[in-house]
Amino acid sequence: MTVTYTLEVSRARFWGFPKLLIRWKGSIYRLMYLEMTSFLALFYLIMTIYRWGLSEEYQKQLEKVALYCREFTLTIPITFVMGFYVTFVAGRWWQQYMNIPWPDRIALQVSAYVSGADERGRLMRRALVRYANLLAIFTFQSTSTVIKRRFPTIDHLLEAGLLTEEEKRTIENIHSPQGTWFVPAHWFCQLATIARKEGRIHDDLHLKSLIDEMCNFRGQCGMIWSYDWISVPLVYTQVVTIAVYSFFMACLFGRQYLLHADVAKGTDNILDYYVPIFTVFQFCFYVGWLKVAESMICPFGEDDDDFELNWIIDRNVQVSYLLADTLHLKHPRLTRDLFWD
Amino acid sequence: MTVTYTLEVSRARFWGFPKLLIRWKGSIYRLMYLEMTSFLALFYLIMTIYRWGLSEEYQKQLEKVALYCREFTLTIPITFVMGFYVTFVAGRWWQQYMNIPWPDRIALQVSAYVSGADERGRLMRRALVRYANLLAIFTFQSTSTVIKRRFPTIDHLLEAGLLTEEEKRTIENIHSPQGTWFVPAHWFCQLATIARKEGRIHDDLHLKSLIDEMCNFRGQCGMIWSYDWISVPLVYTQVVTIAVYSFFMACLFGRQYLLHADVAKGTDNILDYYVPIFTVFQFCFYVGWLKVAESMICPFGEDDDDFELNWIIDRNVQVSYLLADTLHLKHPRLTRDLFWD
Amino acid sequence: MTVTYTLEVSRARFWGFPKLLIRWKGSIYRLMYLEMTSFLALFYLIMTIYRWGLSEEYQKQLEKVALYCREFTLTIPITFVMGFYVTFVAGRWWQQYMNIPWPDRIALQVSAYVSGADERGRLMRRALVRYANLLAIFTFQSTSTVIKRRFPTIDHLLEAGLLTEEEKRTIENIHSPQGTWFVPAHWFCQLATIARKEGRIHDDLHLKSLIDEMCNFRGQCGMIWSYDWISVPLVYTQVVTIAVYSFFMACLFGRQYLLHADVAKGTDNILDYYVPIFTVFQFCFYVGWLKVAESMICPFGEDDDDFELNWIIDRNVQVSYLLADTLHLKHPRLTRDLFWD
Amino acid sequence: MTVTYTLEVSRARFWGFPKLLIRWKGSIYRLMYLEMTSFLALFYLIMTIYRWGLSEEYQKQLEKVALYCREFTLTIPITFVMGFYVTFVAGRWWQQYMNIPWPDRIALQVSAYVSGADERGRLMRRALVRYANLLAIFTFQSTSTVIKRRFPTIDHLLEAGLLTEEEKRTIENIHSPQGTWFVPAHWFCQLATIARKEGRIHDDLHLKSLIDEMCNFRGQCGMIWSYDWISVPLVYTQVVTIAVYSFFMACLFGRQYLLHADVAKGTDNILDYYVPIFTVFQFCFYVGWLKVAESMICPFGEDDDDFELNWIIDRNVQVSYLLADTLHLKHPRLTRDLFWD
Amino acid sequence: MTVTYTLEVSRARFWGFPKLLIRWKGSIYRLMYLEMTSFLALFYLIMTIYRWGLSEEYQKQLEKVALYCREFTLTIPITFVMGFYVTFVAGRWWQQYMNIPWPDRIALQVSAYVSGADERGRLMRRALVRYANLLAIFTFQSTSTVIKRRFPTIDHLLEAGLLTEEEKRTIENIHSPQGTWFVPAHWFCQLATIARKEGRIHDDLHLKSLIDEMCNFRGQCGMIWSYDWISVPLVYTQVVTIAVYSFFMACLFGRQYLLHADVAKGTDNILDYYVPIFTVFQFCFYVGWLKVAESMICPFGEDDDDFELNWIIDRNVQVSYLLADTLHLKHPRLTRDLFWD
Repeated sequence: MTVTYTLEVSRARFWGFPKLLIRWKGSIYRLMYLEMTSFLALFYLIMTIYRWGLSEEYQKQLEKVALYCREFTLTIPITFVMGFYVTFVAGRWWQQYMNIPWPDRIALQVSAYVSGADERGRLMRRALVRYANLLAIFTFQSTSTVIKRRFPTIDHLLEAGLLTEEEKRTIENIHSPQGTWFVPAHWFCQLATIARKEGRIHDDLHLKSLIDEMCNFRGQCGMIWSYDWISVPLVYTQVVTIAVYSFFMACLFGRQYLLHADVAKGTDNILDYYVPIFTVFQFCFYVGWLKVAESMICPFGEDDDDFELNWIIDRNVQVSYLLADTLHLKHPRLTRDLFWD
Repeated sequence: MTVTYTLEVSRARFWGFPKLLIRWKGSIYRLMYLEMTSFLALFYLIMTIYRWGLSEEYQKQLEKVALYCREFTLTIPITFVMGFYVTFVAGRWWQQYMNIPWPDRIALQVSAYVSGADERGRLMRRALVRYANLLAIFTFQSTSTVIKRRFPTIDHLLEAGLLTEEEKRTIENIHSPQGTWFVPAHWFCQLATIARKEGRIHDDLHLKSLIDEMCNFRGQCGMIWSYDWISVPLVYTQVVTIAVYSFFMACLFGRQYLLHADVAKGTDNILDYYVPIFTVFQFCFYVGWLKVAESMICPFGEDDDDFELNWIIDRNVQVSYLLADTLHLKHPRLTRDLFWD
Repeated sequence: MTVTYTLEVSRARFWGFPKLLIRWKGSIYRLMYLEMTSFLALFYLIMTIYRWGLSEEYQKQLEKVALYCREFTLTIPITFVMGFYVTFVAGRWWQQYMNIPWPDRIALQVSAYVSGADERGRLMRRALVRYANLLAIFTFQSTSTVIKRRFPTIDHLLEAGLLTEEEKRTIENIHSPQGTWFVPAHWFCQLATIARKEGRIHDDLHLKSLIDEMCNFRGQCGMIWSYDWISVPLVYTQVVTIAVYSFFMACLFGRQYLLHADVAKGTDNILDYYVPIFTVFQFCFYVGWLKVAESMICPFGEDDDDFELNWIIDRNVQVSYLLADTLHLKHPRLTRDLFWD
Repeated sequence: MTVTYTLEVSRARFWGFPKLLIRWKGSIYRLMYLEMTSFLALFYLIMTIYRWGLSEEYQKQLEKVALYCREFTLTIPITFVMGFYVTFVAGRWWQQYMNIPWPDRIALQVSAYVSGADERGRLMRRALVRYANLLAIFTFQSTSTVIKRRFPTIDHLLEAGLLTEEEKRTIENIHSPQGTWFVPAHWFCQLATIARKEGRIHDDLHLKSLIDEMCNFRGQCGMIWSYDWISVPLVYTQVVTIAVYSFFMACLFGRQYLLHADVAKGTDNILDYYVPIFTVFQFCFYVGWLKVAESMICPFGEDDDDFELNWIIDRNVQVSYLLADTLHLKHPRLTRDLFWD
Repeated sequence: MTVTYTLEVSRARFWGFPKLLIRWKGSIYRLMYLEMTSFLALFYLIMTIYRWGLSEEYQKQLEKVALYCREFTLTIPITFVMGFYVTFVAGRWWQQYMNIPWPDRIALQVSAYVSGADERGRLMRRALVRYANLLAIFTFQSTSTVIKRRFPTIDHLLEAGLLTEEEKRTIENIHSPQGTWFVPAHWFCQLATIARKEGRIHDDLHLKSLIDEMCNFRGQCGMIWSYDWISVPLVYTQVVTIAVYSFFMACLFGRQYLLHADVAKGTDNILDYYVPIFTVFQFCFYVGWLKVAESMICPFGEDDDDFELNWIIDRNVQVSYLLADTLHLKHPRLTRDLFWD
């Protein structure tokens, strides 16, 4: 489900962004409370062992380890790599949104260019927009866990009315080692050609217009599929993950309060705190930033922040039938408007 | 209201940018004086308690807390995450401006392609551009608090003359679970098709041209709506907010002047200042930077810096009627210009 | 005036970029010598007061202030915010260049599509390109101080021959609360329609081609106007300015040589210099960087680096007449070229 | 082979990204285990020599070297240059993916616009799409080691059926010092022109549509070729390489545990570790980041992460024949869909 | 000459990027050996004077200067400004490549749309593509030192056969204060119009297609010219240059080994080295990075990394004649391909 909050901060006012901190859905807390809990559990485990489970000799050894870790946490430059990585992922995330195929342009043009109020005309217009929707659904079937779950097989599409029995048979009879997901685009073009031959499309220009729209629509489906196929290079993700998690592994030791001042001297060991409050903040900060990437890297999943594909598909089917069929030739009578002379 | 100041700094001269610091409207002061006041109030409250409300024992405890906070302020890398976040938000901000739909292209083409100086011709041209404007207003009704307030219901649009009684009835009779905001685009296309059939548009090419323009116009409306629907991922905003506000929470303690030199030794505690002047600057800097994001994240609101939608809508209605109707067929007689031979 | 130097550094060779340091026009020195002078004047004023105007007691007080300032200069992260800000401004700067409307495409097409060597044909072609130029000039009249000064009123345009008497009257008779700067685009489209009706344009396609070009041309004018209207958010500019100037305010004290070693101990106070040479370099660096933004933020002004609008307008008028009228139907006789068989 | 893992992290959940760390194919370990091994071998070699191979005098000398190196590792700003460099390379990487020419648009349009179910019609459609595929393969022959290996000569293409005997002879008879890889684009245009003359393409518009598609297709091939020809400037790559490798050369000494506390005093020499665990992490981090660039800089090679060109070519040939020939005129009979009234 | 090395690193393997360090052409060594030599010469000069030319008193003075410089080198944030600047320059560099006008699209379309195998047909096709090439060469004549040297005057173009005697006369007879470099674009459009009138181009659509291509081609030429005219703002380049060179000026002193431990105490003066090895690395790094910018800022020059314009022009002339004339109407006979049924 998409988390929309822009209107809440439509005025930059006192208590604007901080107000957003109390939300749960899609929030940083929801995304990382398990990580946080694990981290703190380990932190206190080590604290317990160190304070009550070790002799002074071993305590001092562990303090040295802690100091060593402390330094390490200062030299790891997570911020940069995170900044560039998140920017990269966020770019892809938005590009994927931009490539979600909406059939509205096609539906508007089908309604305008394919004439004929008789049954065959209606059949054609409905089939044309259904092919567009079908193409989109075939695409998402292989790229989105949400749609895959909703329509696991072509039979589910048949039941949902996105496909006719006839079309299902046709598609199953095509022998193609590369799958058949792109076939509805072909049907669209062929059907448009027929409509032109029957004179329902009045001009070759309008035929071309429809076919161009379908090519662009299919191009967007191809991009959706490409973003799924070509992930962010695994190495990049691993580098970032290693950076963040090794930082916090080092923190497990490095942020312990050291009991023996002679070992700790010269370092930041002022306060014997029981809650490592600022480490918690840093955790929120760095792991939260990583979670930003994690929730954006696959925007067609089930995260709170992911694009709501189920809604999109329902909407597209309904709106495209509405435009191409129900409202065809329906429009208000022309009357003088308020500003008429 | 938009804050325009470019011309004031059109020459890079002495006292160029600093001159801008004295402006109030849309300024950093206006956006953050409340935050600043709260911060200073808390700062002085803590100072008062620390100096006069605590025994020496507790003072030293608090000093240790202060030192601990001081360190924290050094390790939090706000600048980076801010830089990347603000760049991200600023990119979206400009993209939203670029997607504001202006009906000028449509109006120019309606005026050129839809002929007929009789009443029906005028009715058609006026209706075509009104549909475009109506589509834009429907879009902003659901994405901008400003327009929502101005036109809370469809009746307000009727009163404002953006819709005729007939059109209102038609739109209310459409049963669509997905709303009807996109219907004017459909009317536009249908009306254009009729105009073509009546011969008022002389060529299928010009019909296509008008329909393409409307598809692009509608695409822009869809983008406006998308930017509203798909916010910057909440986690990202929360991460940045946590970073900035935890920094200043730490400053509340960490920037206090420490009374006991033996605790404070080795740290930056040189001057017993009563006004934490540089902390104030840092506050201006970091919170100001965050406010940049806050005022850009929803550019269709009521901030000083937001795009003036009310003006834009008024302008669009007037200019599109002017071009499509009033000035139709009106143009100056051709005469020889000054450089003729 | 534009400062062109690329050819000078066309070879990356020894002494390449440093050679550019000796230029004056458009240089960092020219842009910031006043700031530099002021800074140094204040610096020496404070030095004088501190050394000879204060008792030792007050000197030590001031030294504490200096140390305090010194720290501050270490914590302010100007570089980042500058980097992101300048990138943002530079992006807009280039986008503005890209949106300068050049009438060449229109002129080439007018010359190719609008036939007729008689006077009416010439009148039409000349009027079409003049309308394009006029639209551009109207745009720059409200966005560029340079053009505003050159053509303060419409009468100046009349005198300059960019407008005929007839056109001036027509435009003054249009009642539009939103101005009339966009009207020439309308004239262009109407005149093109007439030319089509008269058969001077042979095909509806060519009419559409001309109208599309004008819509794009007008779109560019709209972008120019948008960049003027929607400035970089004021807060952003103020944040950057505060960062840079507070840094140098702190330097005024923090970079003084401290006379009393006991106060200064542990800090960088090695050399009693009279010229704060490296502070001067830092000044060049940071303020210079800010000046980059300052000279790019309004590229239609009078800075050395601004786009030369006066030249552009003159060039456009001359070239468009040349292409659309003078060279119409003029082209060299076809002969065999050197490589013929 | 492409490494796809997006679906695995489609939910941002506990143990999301870390789970990716255990993959081998395309992983950081696979890419850099040799570097890591060499680094550690050298590290232990130096350790052995230093501890057991040197007199105390020389040990102290080497410790000074170590301290010197230690400082150096602190001042080298690898992170930045890496961040910008990787962003640059990643941009090119994705652009190259975007420019891979897919013949689907061409195949759909050939199927729709080139009519005729007779043999000549089929021959034409098959030839048109084969020319597109051939053009792509010629391009990749000179830019991808994978395709070069698969089709070292034009005879291999003949055997693979991508070229007919006739076409091979024709292409070999063309005398062109600039190669002939672009010739199939020309054949495509000429063949389309002939189809138009024969009336198999019904409208000049559709001819133009096909030729435009081919021009774009050819443009993408040109871009593929350009990215191969114009590498990232060598200097940039060298600068980054020098930065990373000099860093780790310094680490070889600087990260040794120093035996003599009097030399090491004041530095981070707390723990006598035998495994330089955090240096190993840094190595993973920096060299891993460099490897990201290395595997992205030539995406048409044989890295795990490279685009699978062999599969792409096979797929394109099969799909384009399917669309342009096998499925030509084949589409399901129109029947009422589930939502019909 | 372009330096192509992508294929060499097509596999991310051990010793991938480091292998590139041994190249000379286009390498960092070639670009900066003079700078490096000068720097080292000055470094050793100062060392010599300091060690053997000064009394102890002056030595200590100079040591103070050195310490002062040492600090300065720590505070100058070159990396950032370099990162942003190089990204800016690299963006322009690639945009310039993208705007190099290639006549292939024009040649393909001329060959397809302009029919007639007689002499006049050939003359026309050859002239059309020659005009495109001529336009590109005129553009590069004023923007590239390489082409300027090759064709200093129009007579050289005549000799090279890029222009006929007739055309030269025509162009010289045009009186235009703005030059005549854009005139071939006009000829192209006029000639295409004539071909349409003679019926050699069969449809107005194809005429428009050719003219649109020429407008885009001319647009690219305009962009090339714009990138030459509008340099990166001089201030920006100066700021970066000052930053880098002042850094190394400070290094000349700051990286000297200090003889008197009492002055140097607390600073990094551990090793008395004779070769400032790490300073050399830093030099490579920073100056190398600057050289990246230097060699990218004018990509039409004679650097190793610059685009090979001479080759491009030769190729374009040959390929465009080949496509538009030699191969006109030539294409292989259609035969059944290997996969036929």
